[in-house]
Amino acid sequence: MDDDKFHEECGVFGIYGHPDAAAHTALGLHALQHRGQEAAGIVAFDGKHFNAHRDLGQVGDIFSSSAVIARLPGHAAIGHNRYATTGETALRNVQPLFADLSNGGFTLAHNGNLTNARALRHGLVQKGAIFQSTTDTEVIIHLIATSEAGSLIDRMTSALRQIEGAYSLVAMTDSCLIAVRDPLGVRPLVLGRLGDTNVVASETCALDIIGAEFVRDVEAGEMLVLDESGVHSLRPFPPAPRRPCIFEYIYFARPDSMMEGTSIYEARKRIGMELSDESAVAADVVIPVPDSGVPAAIGYSVRSGIPFELGIIRNHYVGRTFIEPAQQIRNLGVRLKHNANRNSIEGKRVILVDDSIVRGTTSVKIVEMVRAAGAAEIHMRIAAPPTMHSCFYGIDTPQREELLASSLDVAGMAKHIGVDSLAFVSLDGLYRAMGETGRDAKAPQYCDACFTGDYPIRLTDFEQSDRPAQLSLLAERA
Amino acid sequence: MDDDKFHEECGVFGIYGHPDAAAHTALGLHALQHRGQEAAGIVAFDGKHFNAHRDLGQVGDIFSSSAVIARLPGHAAIGHNRYATTGETALRNVQPLFADLSNGGFTLAHNGNLTNARALRHGLVQKGAIFQSTTDTEVIIHLIATSEAGSLIDRMTSALRQIEGAYSLVAMTDSCLIAVRDPLGVRPLVLGRLGDTNVVASETCALDIIGAEFVRDVEAGEMLVLDESGVHSLRPFPPAPRRPCIFEYIYFARPDSMMEGTSIYEARKRIGMELSDESAVAADVVIPVPDSGVPAAIGYSVRSGIPFELGIIRNHYVGRTFIEPAQQIRNLGVRLKHNANRNSIEGKRVILVDDSIVRGTTSVKIVEMVRAAGAAEIHMRIAAPPTMHSCFYGIDTPQREELLASSLDVAGMAKHIGVDSLAFVSLDGLYRAMGETGRDAKAPQYCDACFTGDYPIRLTDFEQSDRPAQLSLLAERA
Amino acid sequence: MDDDKFHEECGVFGIYGHPDAAAHTALGLHALQHRGQEAAGIVAFDGKHFNAHRDLGQVGDIFSSSAVIARLPGHAAIGHNRYATTGETALRNVQPLFADLSNGGFTLAHNGNLTNARALRHGLVQKGAIFQSTTDTEVIIHLIATSEAGSLIDRMTSALRQIEGAYSLVAMTDSCLIAVRDPLGVRPLVLGRLGDTNVVASETCALDIIGAEFVRDVEAGEMLVLDESGVHSLRPFPPAPRRPCIFEYIYFARPDSMMEGTSIYEARKRIGMELSDESAVAADVVIPVPDSGVPAAIGYSVRSGIPFELGIIRNHYVGRTFIEPAQQIRNLGVRLKHNANRNSIEGKRVILVDDSIVRGTTSVKIVEMVRAAGAAEIHMRIAAPPTMHSCFYGIDTPQREELLASSLDVAGMAKHIGVDSLAFVSLDGLYRAMGETGRDAKAPQYCDACFTGDYPIRLTDFEQSDRPAQLSLLAERA
Amino acid sequence: MDDDKFHEECGVFGIYGHPDAAAHTALGLHALQHRGQEAAGIVAFDGKHFNAHRDLGQVGDIFSSSAVIARLPGHAAIGHNRYATTGETALRNVQPLFADLSNGGFTLAHNGNLTNARALRHGLVQKGAIFQSTTDTEVIIHLIATSEAGSLIDRMTSALRQIEGAYSLVAMTDSCLIAVRDPLGVRPLVLGRLGDTNVVASETCALDIIGAEFVRDVEAGEMLVLDESGVHSLRPFPPAPRRPCIFEYIYFARPDSMMEGTSIYEARKRIGMELSDESAVAADVVIPVPDSGVPAAIGYSVRSGIPFELGIIRNHYVGRTFIEPAQQIRNLGVRLKHNANRNSIEGKRVILVDDSIVRGTTSVKIVEMVRAAGAAEIHMRIAAPPTMHSCFYGIDTPQREELLASSLDVAGMAKHIGVDSLAFVSLDGLYRAMGETGRDAKAPQYCDACFTGDYPIRLTDFEQSDRPAQLSLLAERA
Repeated sequence: MDDDKFHEECGVFGIYGHPDAAAHTALGLHALQHRGQEAAGIVAFDGKHFNAHRDLGQVGDIFSSSAVIARLPGHAAIGHNRYATTGETALRNVQPLFADLSNGGFTLAHNGNLTNARALRHGLVQKGAIFQSTTDTEVIIHLIATSEAGSLIDRMTSALRQIEGAYSLVAMTDSCLIAVRDPLGVRPLVLGRLGDTNVVASETCALDIIGAEFVRDVEAGEMLVLDESGVHSLRPFPPAPRRPCIFEYIYFARPDSMMEGTSIYEARKRIGMELSDESAVAADVVIPVPDSGVPAAIGYSVRSGIPFELGIIRNHYVGRTFIEPAQQIRNLGVRLKHNANRNSIEGKRVILVDDSIVRGTTSVKIVEMVRAAGAAEIHMRIAAPPTMHSCFYGIDTPQREELLASSLDVAGMAKHIGVDSLAFVSLDGLYRAMGETGRDAKAPQYCDACFTGDYPIRLTDFEQSDRPAQLSLLAERA
Repeated sequence: MDDDKFHEECGVFGIYGHPDAAAHTALGLHALQHRGQEAAGIVAFDGKHFNAHRDLGQVGDIFSSSAVIARLPGHAAIGHNRYATTGETALRNVQPLFADLSNGGFTLAHNGNLTNARALRHGLVQKGAIFQSTTDTEVIIHLIATSEAGSLIDRMTSALRQIEGAYSLVAMTDSCLIAVRDPLGVRPLVLGRLGDTNVVASETCALDIIGAEFVRDVEAGEMLVLDESGVHSLRPFPPAPRRPCIFEYIYFARPDSMMEGTSIYEARKRIGMELSDESAVAADVVIPVPDSGVPAAIGYSVRSGIPFELGIIRNHYVGRTFIEPAQQIRNLGVRLKHNANRNSIEGKRVILVDDSIVRGTTSVKIVEMVRAAGAAEIHMRIAAPPTMHSCFYGIDTPQREELLASSLDVAGMAKHIGVDSLAFVSLDGLYRAMGETGRDAKAPQYCDACFTGDYPIRLTDFEQSDRPAQLSLLAERA
Repeated sequence: MDDDKFHEECGVFGIYGHPDAAAHTALGLHALQHRGQEAAGIVAFDGKHFNAHRDLGQVGDIFSSSAVIARLPGHAAIGHNRYATTGETALRNVQPLFADLSNGGFTLAHNGNLTNARALRHGLVQKGAIFQSTTDTEVIIHLIATSEAGSLIDRMTSALRQIEGAYSLVAMTDSCLIAVRDPLGVRPLVLGRLGDTNVVASETCALDIIGAEFVRDVEAGEMLVLDESGVHSLRPFPPAPRRPCIFEYIYFARPDSMMEGTSIYEARKRIGMELSDESAVAADVVIPVPDSGVPAAIGYSVRSGIPFELGIIRNHYVGRTFIEPAQQIRNLGVRLKHNANRNSIEGKRVILVDDSIVRGTTSVKIVEMVRAAGAAEIHMRIAAPPTMHSCFYGIDTPQREELLASSLDVAGMAKHIGVDSLAFVSLDGLYRAMGETGRDAKAPQYCDACFTGDYPIRLTDFEQSDRPAQLSLLAERA
Repeated sequence: MDDDKFHEECGVFGIYGHPDAAAHTALGLHALQHRGQEAAGIVAFDGKHFNAHRDLGQVGDIFSSSAVIARLPGHAAIGHNRYATTGETALRNVQPLFADLSNGGFTLAHNGNLTNARALRHGLVQKGAIFQSTTDTEVIIHLIATSEAGSLIDRMTSALRQIEGAYSLVAMTDSCLIAVRDPLGVRPLVLGRLGDTNVVASETCALDIIGAEFVRDVEAGEMLVLDESGVHSLRPFPPAPRRPCIFEYIYFARPDSMMEGTSIYEARKRIGMELSDESAVAADVVIPVPDSGVPAAIGYSVRSGIPFELGIIRNHYVGRTFIEPAQQIRNLGVRLKHNANRNSIEGKRVILVDDSIVRGTTSVKIVEMVRAAGAAEIHMRIAAPPTMHSCFYGIDTPQREELLASSLDVAGMAKHIGVDSLAFVSLDGLYRAMGETGRDAKAPQYCDACFTGDYPIRLTDFEQSDRPAQLSLLAERA
């Protein structure tokens, strides 16, 4: 199932100046769990030691014991939820990473992806750097460690100027917490406040859970330094036009989060409305593929006047890995999470709303399930344009040839998936839903490379693809 | 949070005549996970041994390894999901239970509750019976073991005639699988078919996941015997009027299940329509308390014309047990699972729809959260009548004095919860939503004792409350 | 390796009237670890509950955490170390067992073996008893539960009169601790005292570890009741001649224990002296097979004047289960525990002293190892007579045909094992080492059935071998 | 208990050219378990990947599952047993360590201790090196990584010339296995052969377990390169006089190992003989403190003619961490491992033989136990001279002021320990037992710094003790 989505982009959290820094970080990471479920870590600083706990699994499993939290004393902490790429399941890759630098202890976590990590890593290894992990994060740390600049902030600035990519990062030294958003602001990052305590997080929902108030989005290319005297804003990069990732609004972010002044839920609902305007069809019910298709389906229903029904019920209990009986059960993977609510479907003309189509493998199975439940017609409506290009700024994205829209036109896709009609929201429709009058072709307001192939950040490693992809020869389970 | 719901009533599953009996049972139990999350067990019979695996935790954790399924060979199997009562968390209480009877091996699992279990147990212990567990299930097994009847079926019939209560049970011997529904049919049980294989389960959603077709509901007071020659129907009890539990339709069952010809989802939607008819109010949005309030909220919205919005977002990742920071976070318990979607609420008159009010503790917190998100008015609508009486046929139900509706009238409850108005669906409205013209006071069509105090089954243990409540003196963690 | 020994016979421990009863029991069981390494359990009574912890593994793993001991409050406790028989590895068989009887809570542990357990069990199941385990211990509990006698002591006496076999048992009710030694005193049991607290244990080494002083051996057929008023001695059985197991002195017991006034270490040393007298041979060194052959080798060396050397070094770290490489290592099983000390062996005429020969499989490998280390001659001397008969009073003993001495004479055994000469101590020599003038054929002072076939207790189950050997049809790992 | 010994010095093992390299390494590490019980690791090279498994615990626990060995394919492997120093229990410190160097993969394990590790580390961190661990081993790896030499062997040679200390190390690249013994040969290392396969190990007992034959000791300052063409000997260091650690013969090594042509067992026995010659006393029994005192006690008994007895019995089951009852048991720590065999002691004049006295804490308790068992006189004889100086070439050694012999003379120690007489073997007696005519004061044949304070290797870090001792600010449990 999960192979048929663009992956969530990891989540970061940081808090400075609170006696329960680690406990708050655990809660913030729980609220950001949707951004990465494979591993999580927290490092807290108690004035002397950097106390760390990092493990594979979900936040609620790793950080819900009082013994673990008790081992993480400190007034400042950073945390990270990881979405693992293939081959990166080892414990050594769980962030935040830590290093004893000549300046003192330093810990760093980042979400997103660097597009010149491999090139930088190669150069560092040639000079004698020893990498513990295969993460991009460690490239940044080695750049800092080997920088000839003086202060930690200067060394970090020097490192940031060498990296290319989309990221938000949080770091911590023995005197401050640092938060950086990439020059184009592709990945999200917000600043919040809990009494006198400053907080940064990937999304506003992580502020809500701890009762912190939202202050503002961190700006594209901004570096915030949180210390005893408050929040300081630095600008380590030359100015550049903002290009936030539009897929955050389509799928990555939680619907109750706000980004750049826009409600994710409202944006999705408006995409559904655009879809209804652009590709109306006579039908009896609007049914979302839960949970990510729900807001767009509500929008479609409101605009079209066709009733909204929960025609597919999702089972939220974990069941990804059941043993397939020898005599296989058809589409078991889908059945473990979804079941058709036959009563709402049988004999009806169904508009099925999903957030996006990536490989299309799940869509085929969902449609087969809805058909088996007796749908008279199935009209699929997708709350995104066709995803025709790889995302190099995200985590473990399918290669272009794996994307259904890269090899088939809409009619071909409709046939492949087995629906009576298929429509995607238009690119301009998507931009209208975001509150724009349309996409500004000369200066696009968002990064929409997965739809347009217009990549705003250089793809150094992709262009130098002769370099071996394998970053480490070490194979170890733990 | 969970203390403020009536508890799910455990789930049972049985399959006879399939080479992958245990793997199918694991899937069936996964689909029934909502009926009990504390423990699960499967016993499979391979023609010689009764192969068992029982553990605390969720089905996906216990039964998703191939090594575990490989240890459960057999062509027949029964399984159970348990919702633990206080003090019953020990492994020895995980069903199905097993006994080496003089007739051979015997295994049994049941959902529901016996109302004379304590009295029967006391008598058995006096005669020298040694109980391994504190479950009602074991009372049935000892009655069978010490029965002087001849065949296992006769001994089981004799045992069933001595027990009082609401239950569905599945059992297995070395020659057949037995499924029994209690005389009044309070607890649900359905029969399905997968090719030549017969299947029984608490709900139809467990048939759907394995691709089995629904055959029929097991009738009230019916005993089915599944063996090599097919399905045999027996009637061990004197005839009695049917009284299925109406709370299954309100909360216990999954919305995609069918019971007695009624879609659970449709029933809930119709309750929402009745609510709208009975207690209309001027408002801007209809917002469900997710997930159980969603169908009724859709019904309310459809009937009232007031837009449906996901104004509260639920985080499905497990997070019940986080460590509360010393400086406590207000209503953390609710925040771990729910967050207000401020954009849909701020400045609006909100109709908040929930399935029921038990203690009311969660309602207070949810309302406070919605109020903090800027709601102008909050009108709470409940898709059940006030729950004024304990349920003695279910699992670990609150005592009467703990029920909010037992001590406050509707106005008092509204004030306590902090809403601008509060309304419950009427008893007749509820029955109308079930397709009746109303409640037949002389012969009520359902068990609705939690609303009416009209208990259709004798409450022997409750009436003889002088007997000590503690069933075992053994205290052991594992 | 361990298949080539008679198995240790389990160990029991009990303490009454000490605030740290469980912690002392854990220490006592640690000292008795050699009597059973597969599982251990403790039940402590705190005046209200019987607090239990039972698990597979060694005492130091199960009972060394403060959290576990904290869950076992109480002023009285009993404990058990188990040596598992085939198929009895399940958790349900870990003793002490517990039952809620009509008289109240009751817990019991026993070492040894009942020779009519199967017959008694069959009768109990016919009457409706449900067994949780496949242990002999549970037979005793069911006999007590179904007894028609009045007091617990009377019911227990009635049960004990029905059982046949060799055992020591400890039991506990809500008012006392009970310790019983079988009518012939085959299995050992001692009484000790720690201040005002009374203690019972299988061997004196368990008194030593907690600093308790030895009071006396419990007599054959004696029942001790330990309660608030002290120690009471009862005699539930008719008088019978004492027949302690002579193999305790040869192998089972720890060398630092005293039994019936005899030091185990001294007894073994004297056996070595008898061996030297009976079968002297010209040699350069006396080398024990460690650890059990050491005392007899010291005795042999002292008497013969031939130097004692540690020619075989034992590695005590756990290493039974290493993965055999595909290209197998010769005699890996022996190498994991033993290594020849070449320097003490090369070119020497070696007298190799071991405690006994059961199957002979290990002896073959040890001799091959000593030969490979360059021994000029190997003369094996065994500190027991040939074991020609099964032991029905012990745990999981080899059947007669598996015993090397049942099919080969001494010359045949010498050839099979590959030694230049082989000699066993004579039966009378063994009795002399025990301080007797020889074996009294009319009234043997010890049970020596494994050497003589003279079984002092009836072998009911063995004689009625038509009854199925399988006690339970339940197959479950945990 | 263990605080009163010099610590074992870790063990290393390497094998090149065998299809079951990892399984053999696991067995070799099992035989070397006495050199370090806190953690163990294996890295195997399969021609492509370096497959690693490293964990806390004993070899038999970590490497006895077939699943683990199956994850370690390869024809070459190195392994390590670790004895943890304070604060080094984290998983990140478990060797062998691994690094992706610019030359390719590289893995290294070493035993012993570097005396300038802190100074080297400080310099490396200043240049930007990031350390994953706090081990000395990683210093060597960073020196190699940042070396400007060309080939790996050249870079390694350059690194080795910078380090000071006592060590044996094994390393592996994608083309060879490298084994190095320190310039003075302080730590042991041997070369063996199994068919066509070459093996290196800390001691010969690791050759015995896999059936390999001993070839020769690796020479002091020798570097062996094992590859497809065989064994190559290099000499990276300037020549220096050999100074093997004499404490290996006293305590560290296994008695069945050979070092530099000497049997450890024989050396210990001869020390006992020297002791008897030097400090004879009238007595009834010679009793060893088991197990390390046994060979010297045998030697003492042989030379003195006083009978050898196992007067103290050792319980080898793990029991270090039992919960002390509130009402403490006197000397529980000693009782968990040792028990007096009263029968051999009572009323006797006892010569108690132990290998060495470090802090003396255990000696006090052992003597008290022997006294309580009724000894008439206790004469303690120690198979080493007084340990008056710290060992800077070993692991976690006590500081000088903690050594009993640094503050008390022999008479003072006798009084402190509570014995009737106390004697240590003389330094020349020790050298005689090693086959020398005595210690050559101008060119001592062994490193005996712990007795003499004559340190043959520079103590750079100790002399520059102003540098902070804390190597990492990271605190993490896993």
